[in-house]
Amino acid sequence: MSATRPVFFVSDHTGITAEVVGKSLLSRFSEHSFTVSSLPFTDDMEKVEHAARLIEAATRAHGQRALVISTLTDSRLRQRLVQTDCLLLDVFSLFLAQLESELGESATPALGQAHGLRDHGLYRARMEAVNFTLATDDGLAIERYDQADLILVGVSRSGKTPTSLYMAMQYGLKVANDPLTPEDLEQGTLPQRLDKYLVKLRGLTLLPERLAQIREERRPRSTYASLANCRQELHAAERMLRARGIPLIDSTQRSVEEIAARLKQSLGSAP
Amino acid sequence: MSATRPVFFVSDHTGITAEVVGKSLLSRFSEHSFTVSSLPFTDDMEKVEHAARLIEAATRAHGQRALVISTLTDSRLRQRLVQTDCLLLDVFSLFLAQLESELGESATPALGQAHGLRDHGLYRARMEAVNFTLATDDGLAIERYDQADLILVGVSRSGKTPTSLYMAMQYGLKVANDPLTPEDLEQGTLPQRLDKYLVKLRGLTLLPERLAQIREERRPRSTYASLANCRQELHAAERMLRARGIPLIDSTQRSVEEIAARLKQSLGSAP
Repeated sequence: MSATRPVFFVSDHTGITAEVVGKSLLSRFSEHSFTVSSLPFTDDMEKVEHAARLIEAATRAHGQRALVISTLTDSRLRQRLVQTDCLLLDVFSLFLAQLESELGESATPALGQAHGLRDHGLYRARMEAVNFTLATDDGLAIERYDQADLILVGVSRSGKTPTSLYMAMQYGLKVANDPLTPEDLEQGTLPQRLDKYLVKLRGLTLLPERLAQIREERRPRSTYASLANCRQELHAAERMLRARGIPLIDSTQRSVEEIAARLKQSLGSAP
Repeated sequence: MSATRPVFFVSDHTGITAEVVGKSLLSRFSEHSFTVSSLPFTDDMEKVEHAARLIEAATRAHGQRALVISTLTDSRLRQRLVQTDCLLLDVFSLFLAQLESELGESATPALGQAHGLRDHGLYRARMEAVNFTLATDDGLAIERYDQADLILVGVSRSGKTPTSLYMAMQYGLKVANDPLTPEDLEQGTLPQRLDKYLVKLRGLTLLPERLAQIREERRPRSTYASLANCRQELHAAERMLRARGIPLIDSTQRSVEEIAARLKQSLGSAP
């Protein structure tokens, strides 16, 4: 079973839902390899016909049925894919019917834009959060920390920036980040600039070996990137943060999504 | 039907898949309001018991069955929710069984981390893309444009930065962005710095009224934010970009996800 399976994500909108579900499902089948194509904005019969032709061509070319993960709101469009030679997994058909019956309301196709602008308030909050996070990145605007939902602290290259941006974009949280410099670490106590934001602080840490690897890419053969220096900085940072009871999260084996979800969870249960 | 329905997203990992599917489904029911809670990292029986208690408490408190959108890989954990008083929509149970039968392979629970680090290559590409996008934001590093997958151009506040960051984070694309300044617009022809990247350029535009509103928040009562100035800048920018055949996308009624998906699509079909 080593042949590559063709996979299509077909959606009448951005395709984000179909992609997220599809990738999540496929990640559970490690013995197969998949060739993935996205067909977003498939929102009329002509485009569905085109999608169906691509799908059937792939099925023929690979000698194996294509897998199609779809999120089509219009049942006529969905029906056209049902007639296509593929394994069709439509995220909406089953669940929408169950929800319609539970809620006693018909699903409205035209509103089917979870990634659109329907919820203007939340969307605006997310864009504002992204701007806030960019403006406060890497300790750029300490005077705005009082507006932050969360302030990430850690040594250089511990993953603060991508995590902050992801949380702003995904959750609409205003996440600042503040670097612990070698000078801060030498002091040994939490920098005064952070003192009054104690409940908002979360520390990012990682294994020294991994940090050295990341820094080596940035400044090869520097003291900055040396394992000894990374070890010393991380040790000092962890001790400093633990002394003040600041929660630490280890990013070595975690993706930015995992770190973000855990940090968000830590917010919810904050005192 | 104005009572608020309790909704839970229950996942054994980050909860991103459950949230995306759940929000996408709920956006189709406009007559109801929903109170949403996320329960990520529900990955052992104790945590599922806790989730079940929260769900049943919400059902009692609201006098209406809670809706639960779940992505639980372990069928024993899922089974516990089946016994809970709620409408359970589990994204995995049905689709995993269909895929197992189609692929002739059992789904592997332990790999169930679409948002983990399993695909190190892609993850690394995404983080590199975020770093690239930050380094080239707002025309900061023109000398790196040759490494870009895409270069967004447009007037100040046309949405270039959030769109670039989203595309980097979501798709792992290196997206630079370059501002068309009033001086550029006065020249009337595409700035020379962009000339050799023609196929990578995409223009962002929007309605003058919307741009004026956005700029007004930044610099109230300025010439910069005035409707007349916005109209003039946008007109000049659109004419300049059209003259060189650069595709334009209007962001007025579109979310960053929609713009990003369309831009990605335009890449795929580029000559």
